[in-house]
Order: sequence, then C-alpha cells, then structure tokens
Amino acid sequence: MNDRILHFESDYTAGAHPCVLDRLASTNLEHTPGYGDDAYCQSAVRRIRAACACPEAEIRFLVGGTQTNATVLDALLRPYEGVLAATCGHIAVHEAGAVEAAGHKVITLPGREGKVWPADLADWLDAFYADATWPHMAQPGALYLSHPTELGTLYSLGELEALSALCHRRGLRLYVDGARLGYGLAAPGTDVGLPDLARLCDAFSIGGTKVGALMGEAVVFPRPAMAQGFFTLVKRHGALLAKGRLLGLQFDTLFTDGLYTEIGRYAVGLALRLKSAFVARGYRLHVDSPTNQQFVELPAATFAALQPRVGFEVWSPAADEAVVARFVTSWATREADVDTLIEFL
Amino acid sequence: MNDRILHFESDYTAGAHPCVLDRLASTNLEHTPGYGDDAYCQSAVRRIRAACACPEAEIRFLVGGTQTNATVLDALLRPYEGVLAATCGHIAVHEAGAVEAAGHKVITLPGREGKVWPADLADWLDAFYADATWPHMAQPGALYLSHPTELGTLYSLGELEALSALCHRRGLRLYVDGARLGYGLAAPGTDVGLPDLARLCDAFSIGGTKVGALMGEAVVFPRPAMAQGFFTLVKRHGALLAKGRLLGLQFDTLFTDGLYTEIGRYAVGLALRLKSAFVARGYRLHVDSPTNQQFVELPAATFAALQPRVGFEVWSPAADEAVVARFVTSWATREADVDTLIEFL
Amino acid sequence: MNDRILHFESDYTAGAHPCVLDRLASTNLEHTPGYGDDAYCQSAVRRIRAACACPEAEIRFLVGGTQTNATVLDALLRPYEGVLAATCGHIAVHEAGAVEAAGHKVITLPGREGKVWPADLADWLDAFYADATWPHMAQPGALYLSHPTELGTLYSLGELEALSALCHRRGLRLYVDGARLGYGLAAPGTDVGLPDLARLCDAFSIGGTKVGALMGEAVVFPRPAMAQGFFTLVKRHGALLAKGRLLGLQFDTLFTDGLYTEIGRYAVGLALRLKSAFVARGYRLHVDSPTNQQFVELPAATFAALQPRVGFEVWSPAADEAVVARFVTSWATREADVDTLIEFL
Amino acid sequence: MNDRILHFESDYTAGAHPCVLDRLASTNLEHTPGYGDDAYCQSAVRRIRAACACPEAEIRFLVGGTQTNATVLDALLRPYEGVLAATCGHIAVHEAGAVEAAGHKVITLPGREGKVWPADLADWLDAFYADATWPHMAQPGALYLSHPTELGTLYSLGELEALSALCHRRGLRLYVDGARLGYGLAAPGTDVGLPDLARLCDAFSIGGTKVGALMGEAVVFPRPAMAQGFFTLVKRHGALLAKGRLLGLQFDTLFTDGLYTEIGRYAVGLALRLKSAFVARGYRLHVDSPTNQQFVELPAATFAALQPRVGFEVWSPAADEAVVARFVTSWATREADVDTLIEFL
Repeated sequence: MNDRILHFESDYTAGAHPCVLDRLASTNLEHTPGYGDDAYCQSAVRRIRAACACPEAEIRFLVGGTQTNATVLDALLRPYEGVLAATCGHIAVHEAGAVEAAGHKVITLPGREGKVWPADLADWLDAFYADATWPHMAQPGALYLSHPTELGTLYSLGELEALSALCHRRGLRLYVDGARLGYGLAAPGTDVGLPDLARLCDAFSIGGTKVGALMGEAVVFPRPAMAQGFFTLVKRHGALLAKGRLLGLQFDTLFTDGLYTEIGRYAVGLALRLKSAFVARGYRLHVDSPTNQQFVELPAATFAALQPRVGFEVWSPAADEAVVARFVTSWATREADVDTLIEFL
Repeated sequence: MNDRILHFESDYTAGAHPCVLDRLASTNLEHTPGYGDDAYCQSAVRRIRAACACPEAEIRFLVGGTQTNATVLDALLRPYEGVLAATCGHIAVHEAGAVEAAGHKVITLPGREGKVWPADLADWLDAFYADATWPHMAQPGALYLSHPTELGTLYSLGELEALSALCHRRGLRLYVDGARLGYGLAAPGTDVGLPDLARLCDAFSIGGTKVGALMGEAVVFPRPAMAQGFFTLVKRHGALLAKGRLLGLQFDTLFTDGLYTEIGRYAVGLALRLKSAFVARGYRLHVDSPTNQQFVELPAATFAALQPRVGFEVWSPAADEAVVARFVTSWATREADVDTLIEFL
Repeated sequence: MNDRILHFESDYTAGAHPCVLDRLASTNLEHTPGYGDDAYCQSAVRRIRAACACPEAEIRFLVGGTQTNATVLDALLRPYEGVLAATCGHIAVHEAGAVEAAGHKVITLPGREGKVWPADLADWLDAFYADATWPHMAQPGALYLSHPTELGTLYSLGELEALSALCHRRGLRLYVDGARLGYGLAAPGTDVGLPDLARLCDAFSIGGTKVGALMGEAVVFPRPAMAQGFFTLVKRHGALLAKGRLLGLQFDTLFTDGLYTEIGRYAVGLALRLKSAFVARGYRLHVDSPTNQQFVELPAATFAALQPRVGFEVWSPAADEAVVARFVTSWATREADVDTLIEFL
Repeated sequence: MNDRILHFESDYTAGAHPCVLDRLASTNLEHTPGYGDDAYCQSAVRRIRAACACPEAEIRFLVGGTQTNATVLDALLRPYEGVLAATCGHIAVHEAGAVEAAGHKVITLPGREGKVWPADLADWLDAFYADATWPHMAQPGALYLSHPTELGTLYSLGELEALSALCHRRGLRLYVDGARLGYGLAAPGTDVGLPDLARLCDAFSIGGTKVGALMGEAVVFPRPAMAQGFFTLVKRHGALLAKGRLLGLQFDTLFTDGLYTEIGRYAVGLALRLKSAFVARGYRLHVDSPTNQQFVELPAATFAALQPRVGFEVWSPAADEAVVARFVTSWATREADVDTLIEFL
C-alpha cells in the first residue's frame, strides 16, 4: 500500500498494538509448553473468565476467524444439522464453504441491516416445522450471529435475549461471532457486555486479530459441557497453534488494564467523528453503524477525488454511478488521518 | 516451564529468531493488504523460488503444520483417494484425524526408522492391485513423507528419486512434509537440497514454526497446475491468515542472507555434539538421527537424575525400566546448555 | 393408505411396472456376479448408450435419487467448489444436506417456474466475478438442473443449449437430475431427447424409481474421462448395490421395446387430461406443467370435499384459505381413477 | 456366471428367497406412503422388536451394508472421534473410505480369526491414554464388530459381554455389523441371540441382503435416545429408499414364521456338511468357521481341478502354490450342489 495514503481499508492492515508486540518481544526467549498449556494462556483464561463473570467457562485460543467459526460450529452441531445465519453473514458468504467443509449446511435468513430479527427467526422456524417434509431437510441446529455485524450494526440486549430464548426453546444453540467484538462493546449506548454474552450464548468468540492482536480469537463456552473434546476438535481443524503462548500472551495483554476496551473506544470514537463529518456534509449513510465500520454513499465525483489519497473499500455500487464505501478505523488509525480525511470531504 | 531447567523438549518452546522478531517489530505500523497479497509475501515467494531453482513455483504461506498437511492433501487427492504414510507419520498419528476430516483415508505402511522404503511401497502397490477387490477400497492417491522424519532421519537423494519415480509411474502424487526441513537441509552428508524437492515432489512444505519463525509453513507447488484453486482451498480450511504479511515477513527474513540455513546448521551442530557425547558415554541410540532430534535410551537411574534439571520428552518406554528420551535443539538452544547437559551425563 | 381412495399422491407409492417385476421374478434364482459386473447391467448399458446415441458413455446404476445427486456432484466438483441450483432445486431443499455432507456448498439462484434461466445464471456469474473478494467464496463448479423440474416444467432445447454453452464457457460442469426424466421425454411438444442431454451435459441421471422400477437411477457420463474413479466413489457413498443385477435388469427392461417411453406417454397423457379438466372447470393452475405433475389451486371447499376420497399432496397454502395441490400420475395410475377424479371436480 | 457351474461364490449372487419375492409381487400394485412410513414397515418393526425382546427399540431400514455402517457410525460418533475395528473389519478394508467420507478415522486393532479380543481392546485403550499426547489424536468413540466376522467366526456371549462392559466403562459405543447375522444366529452352539445384542449394543444391524432379501439392512437402536435425528441422517447419507415399503415387506416376511432363522439354519447346515467333507478328506481349514462361510486351503492341483466347475472365491495365496478358498452357502444353495461338490473333492 502507498505510504502517503490515509488508511481506512480495514482493521487488519497493520500489525499489533504496541503493548501486545512489546509483550511478545519481552518473552521471546522464554521456553514454555506448546499448544496452549502454558502460564500465559492460563492467565488470559482467568482474565477473560473474570471479564465475562463466568468463572467456569471453557476458553480456548484459535488463530483466525474462519477457522474459529468452522470449528465452533462443528462442536455445536450434530451431523444432520445446519446453521442459520443472515444472508450477509460471514459464514454464508466469505468463508469459502468452511462450514460446509465440515458437512453442515448454512441456511440463510434475510438480515435487516445485517441482523437477524427475532420475528424473522420465529417465522422461519414456524414455516420449517409446518412443512410436513421437514425431516427430509437439514435440521436447524444453531443460530449464527455476528456482533458487530458485517455492516457494523449491533444487537440490543433485548434482541439478544429474545433470540437466545427462542433458540433454546426450539432446540437451537446460539453462537456469536465476535471478530470485532471489542468495537461493539465500546459503542456508545450499547447495553450488551461480555457477561450478557456468557449468559445468553452457547459459545462466542472474542476477536483479537482486528482488535489489537497480530492474530487470534478467544472462544468462550460458558457451559463447559458444550466443549467436550474441543481441544481435539481444534487440532483436527488445523486450528491449534504450536506456540500457543503467542495467543495467550496477546489476550492476556489485551485483558490487562482494560486495553481491549480502550482500543475499542479509541477506534469507535474516531469512526463516529468521521460519521458525523459525513452526515454534516450531507452524505447519505448506507447503514447507521455505531461501531468502527462506517458505510457511506460517495457520489462519483467524490469517489474519484478521494480514491488516489484515501484507502477504503468499495462495498457495492449505488445509484447514479455512486458507490457505497466502507471506512474502517482501528487502534492503528491516527487521529490526524481522520482530520485530514474530514478536510478532504 | 521452570527457568532453571535446560530446554531440550522441542523446537517450538521459544518464540522467534531475533532477526525475525525485529523484522515484525520494525514493520508493525505499516499498512498492507491482507491475505498474502502484500509486497513482503511477494518478496518471500521470489526468494524461495530462487532457493528452489523453480521460478514458476506456486507458493503460499499457511500458519501451522497440521493445517498445511490437511490442506495440501485435500488439493492433491480426488475424493475417493487416500494417502499412504509410514505408520509413525505425523498425519497418521498426531493430527487428530485432520486428513480424514476432509474425507481421505490415511493408509499406513510400515516405516523403517520413520522412513518409507521404496521396496515397501512397491510391494504394497503390487499387493493392492493384485487383489481383485481393489476398486472397493480407498485408492492410493498420494504418498506422504516427512523429511526429516518424526525420528529425525533423512531420505537420501536416491531414495527420494526412487520414491518419486515409483509414485509417478503408479499414478500417485508425492508430498513431503518439511515441518523441520531446515534441520534436514543442514545435516552433514545429506545430498538433498530444495531444488531436488522441487524436481521430485508435487508439493512440499518448508517449515517455519520449528525453524525460527513464530509460526508459518511455506507450501511449494513446483508445477502451478497442481495448485488450481488453492487460495480458496486455504481459506476453506481456515488456514488463511488475515494479516498475511506476518508470514511473508518471516519467510522473507529466513530466506535472506542464508538465515534459514544458518539456523539449521547451528541447531544440528549442537544436536550432533550431544549425540557424540551420548555415544561416547555408552548410551544406546534409539535411532541414528543426523538432525536436530536425538533419541537415546536412558537407564532408569540416569532418567531419574536428569529429569529435575533437564527438559526432554519421554518418547517410549524401553526394556529394564529404561526410557527412550528425545532431545531437541533449535536456534534457541544455548551452547552453554549443551555443555551443561553433557556434564550431567 | 386407504384403498378406497384415488391415488395421486406421488409417482413412488406403488411397486414396479409389471414387466419389470416379471423380469425380476423370472431371473430370481440365477447366480450372477455382484456390484454391476453382470450381463444384465452390460445389456442395459448397451441399450442406454444406444438411446443416447453415445456409444462411449460411462453408465452406472445407483439406487436412489439423493445418493445419485450427491455422488455425481462429488465426482464433478473440486473440493473448493459449490454447485449452483434453483432455490427450489431438490438438492437445495429436500436432500437433508447430502451435497454439503461431501463438503460442497449449494448456491441458490432464483428459479422461474422451477427453472434456472440462462440470463439469471449469466448475471449471477458476472456479479460473482465482479466482486473482488470472490476468491474468498466457494467457487461455482457446476450447475444442477432437474428436468422435469420439481414443478413439472421442462427446459426447451434452446434453453439447455444456452445453459450448457454458458457453463462450459465459464468453467462449470452441467449436471441434469432426471429423476422424472421419462415423464419429461414424453411430454408433447418437448424438443429435448436423450441424445441432446448426452451432447450438452457432463453427467445426467435417468430415473427409474419414479418411472416404473422398484428403485434405481442410471447415471450417464457422456465423456468417460469425467467418471474417473466413479465405481469407487459410488462404493464410498454407500450407493453400490450388492445385487447389482437388480438395477441392470430393471433398466434393461425399461429400455426394451420402448417401455420407458411408453410409461412416460401413458402417465403424461393422464396428467394432461386431468389438467384440461381442471382448466375447463375454472381452477387456476399454479404452474403450467406439461408433465406428470399438475399443480392446481383448490378453493377451501373443494379441498375439503376431495380430501377424504382423493390422495394428493398439499404443496403450499394459497390466498383465501385455498391450497395449491399437487396431483401426480404414473404407470400405476388407472384411467378409471382419472375419470372418477374428474367427476368429483 | 456359467449356469453349469456350482455356485459357492457368495451369498449375494442370487435374488430373494421365494417367499420374499412373492410378497413383493402380491403387494406390487398397492399404494403406500413413501420413506418407511407405511404399515409394512411398521409391522416389520413390531416383529423385530419382539424378536429382540426390546419393545422400545428404534428401528430403521436401509438399503446396503456399507451405507448402513457409515450412517450408523456417523450417528454414534462425535466429529473428533474415530472407530476401532479389527484389521480385517469390513469398514477398515472394503468400504472405499465410506467412514472416512463422514470424517471419522478407522483405527485398526489386530484381529484374531477376525475377532477383536477384549484383552487387545483393553491393552489398546490403556496404551492410548498412557500416551501424554492422546488429545492430539482422533479419540476412540466406538467399537465396530462384525458378527459373524469377515472370516465366518462368531463371538461368544461372554466375549460380547466383556467387550460391551469395557466399551461402556471407557466411554465407547458398541456397534455390531450383522450383515450375515442370520447365519450367526443359526450356528450350532452359539449362545448369542437377538435379545443379547439388544442388551449389549448401542446399535446393530440385521442383514437382509445376504439372508434372503433382494436388499436391505435393518438398523436397531435398543435405546432410542441414541437415534436422535436418525431419519434425517439416513436421508443425508442417501440411504433412504423412496419406496420404503419394499424394505418393510421383506423384513416383515423374514421375521414371520421364523423364516430368517430357517434360512440361517438351512445354509449353515449345508456349510457344515461341506466343512466336514473337507476335513474328512484332509484339507486344512484356514479358520474354524461355524457359519455359512468356509475357508479352506486348496492345493494347487485341487484348485485347478475345481475351478472350471465350481464357483468360489480365492481368498488369499497360501504356501506351495496352494490357495485359501472361500465357499459360501445361502438360502439359494441347492443340497444337490453340495453333494456334487463333495463328490468332486
């Protein structure tokens, strides 16, 4: 990428938060057991359990998001079950069939601003079981949500409670993909915290890759019985890091002195400044996102003017040659760059 | 692990070679495209192609060994095919069924000191096709070798040539797992180099995790036609790192100024000093390994004396309460520790 | 089922066409080799090759429809590829994730009266490859069509030629599920024959289960290279019948003296009489089907009156308490029953 | 096959027992619901439950043996688990990787005359869990036995009880493949009956294909909780027959008036006459089988003399150009043919 450009392409274009990198460097020559059986992983587990107010949770560290989703869903589903997800859900679109690779169908529900609505799920389940041929179909075994969603939106606590209750009443397990969870927890006005996820989900992930780590996702099973054999399943999915402490060290750092929260607040703050600037200048938002991803319609002329100087992602075409553009902030976004981008607008 | 202990447990107990870590640190704040589409990956590809004397090779960087084996074999095999491996082969034993997870049977051949002998493979294939019921069995589609093997042994160039010729004559593809390849290339007396692997294999890996990197395996397809769709397959296996440059940077560093070779020589040198000391003191070697893993029988008394002060792995029980112990060196092994261990003996 | 009822529920509620059953009975005590390696299978293969004007075709006999679709698609697809199908396609809905069980995503396109339109496929492919993230998605590897479709409709020869050309231009293989093919070949006005399918498809099936056999689907690979290893793949999918001659005998009988065609004509003739009667009495057709499945809207009162005396399937609810009902004919439908049903209307 | 030859090749070379075929013929024109939801299947279920003295058993009818093994094991195993089997077990050798196709490793134990010995299983489990790296390996989740085994041998009740107790103590499920069960139940001296299997197993199959049916295997889950979702799993494995009544009718007939037992007794009686004749004439038995498969060493001259006139299978080569030959009887074997064969000897 061009160094003179402003970077809003994504939240995984830079390395790790300096505190994380320092920790890796300062422990580099230590020898520890492999595969997550080290003191740093144990410490990270303790900190995350505390943050989730869930002292008995089973917690494991995996490397990447797609592998995390595929591995966790493989643990949650019976072989004849599929997983429900919003049409735009990451597992439904951008994971190259990783869930299907383990034999599970991804069944899509229409999303609303990226979210699955409780009423839509209820309607789908009613229609499914009303069809006398339902035993001939892949059975709904779990609901996949992302929080924040692929469109940066968030579930309210009430929505999550409704979805969780509905899932458990109808025999589904609930899994929340938290690849960008740090940016969701830090959004102003959200009423969803880690203890809520631990209370409502059968499994959820806490993303590191996009929130300050070099790589890594923490998987939380609030009820350990759901995680039976999970270590072996992680190995089988190729998701077990030999030098497991690298993941433990990163999450231990992120969950020390509130760094994970601080990263979230910083990046969301910048994103919302950008959003305000877009709105103030009359740009139309594609979706009303309270997190670190902002989606805005850029008229053709603006697009042409920005593109050489600002890195962003073209999300989709819009009417009249306009495009929907995605601007993403992270711990690595400089305040000055936000200022400069706002000037450009 | 206890810090006062000497560490010979494995070659993945420490972090990364300092040069590798420095490179990660010095580039940390840069922004690059994700998923391996960055200049560092491109540079690493160029260096590895040059080292393999194979300018057209398709090269991709994955995170871990098990995922590399499962992904590459999934690319090489048709759905009704299995893979042949030595009984002690890593894919046959220690990968939690990752190859089977993609639907492929691992068919085992007796190994000799960890190696598949050409005559054993020929006999197996003759017997297989002599059985009139062979179309009812999983078909042999590929041969898996590790080099060095799980017992630290190496194939000679002649053996590899014989195996490669036999495979290709009988319709098998040849894959070499090079998780510890650096320690094999650096063994005194080996006549196998990277260009030989590129000439003889359909795919092979160059291990980073155990040879100086934090994590990472480079996969080489000498003939790119074998790698059709491999990027998507890597994603599907959850093996695609978002911040792909982390892998490119590490391999670029390892293949600059001969660092990969230097690490190999250093660790093998220490291992062979240790081996000589064992032999000189009358210990029996379990296998004659020319690489960084040494397997030696420790009488019960020696075992009891060493265990509190030296980290090593108990490989298997032996006669008379003795154990076969594995001692492993790496770039992170200190010369002084080898001296101290030798003193202990 | 009630014997005093008229049977229009489906085309698999009775046994086999009497000629087929007689053939099974008259050969019952013969001993033949198993697994399809018998003279009856060989004869059936010769007859089907002739009917397809494709003397080199590779032909295998499997037991059921879902297993046929899953096995053939497993043969046609690379592991990172999915299959495109209409939203209502049998593999997308009613096969319990059998295609996903082999790791392949079913990607749905909107169907029009059950059919995939060439323009919709072209648009989908254009949109897919226009998205820069396409390598992160399951790749389109094949197109699945059913002919007749699940709604009884048929492709014209021109439509099949357009779809075949488009598939092959874009690297997709074309597979036609002919579970009810006999009723499609016999539809008045169709311009599609077996030689057309052999010319245009990479694989297609000729259904026996619903067209006069006890069970059985013949799979045709017009170009044998596409069928490499298919025998072993059939075994692996549990689709290889031990007493393979049972399938060969049935298809040999169906393709002798035009029985397959005759069954098709008979059943379609009855279905079209029924359709005319519905139309003449002012019932609204749900879809204009030229084959043995007729879909008609029944007002609530008619539905209530028919249900105790006539077996049919409720396809879906319609407006004003009406239902869409499916009436299916087969070789086993009695003309007198059609008359009686028409009287009831 | 040559009609002037005597047929001892296998127990699946002829059609169905005449009573079974008559039943299919006499019901041919009836209409019944598909997929096993018909009165014949229900009647067959009742009869089998009674024969097993297990009124609550969940019973389903599948088509073939390989698909039955793969489907049942998929129901019994968690995704990270494999299945233990004797080296010569059918799933380990002759099912083309069907178990692996669902992602499960087949782990082999040395068999003794085709049987898994309780002591060998106990030793294997002890060794497995004694290895500290066991969580990195596919976990043992079930034990697969065949009864009779591939070598015609039988477990005693004591052996089955020991294996069942060991399995359940160590967290394994027990599955018995009864593809030839009828010939095992009828062996003189056996103390194993259907109620024993129902008491000791988590699932077992009752073979029809080789014991009088055209095709079909009944699967019995003595405890229905083990069969959760099994209907959908059967569909997903392509193992659900559309005209399900064909299977119900056959098993209903086989379990009426003791036909299943009678077939077993008849065929075993002939096999044992043959065995006595071999022994009386000094032939060496390869294994001491009490069931319908007899394995005997034929010197080269005998082999040459018999081959043109008698159909049998060459099992394996033996010393001095001799071969081990397999002679199989069934309901379709004529007494006169046994007499003629004995004369030939």
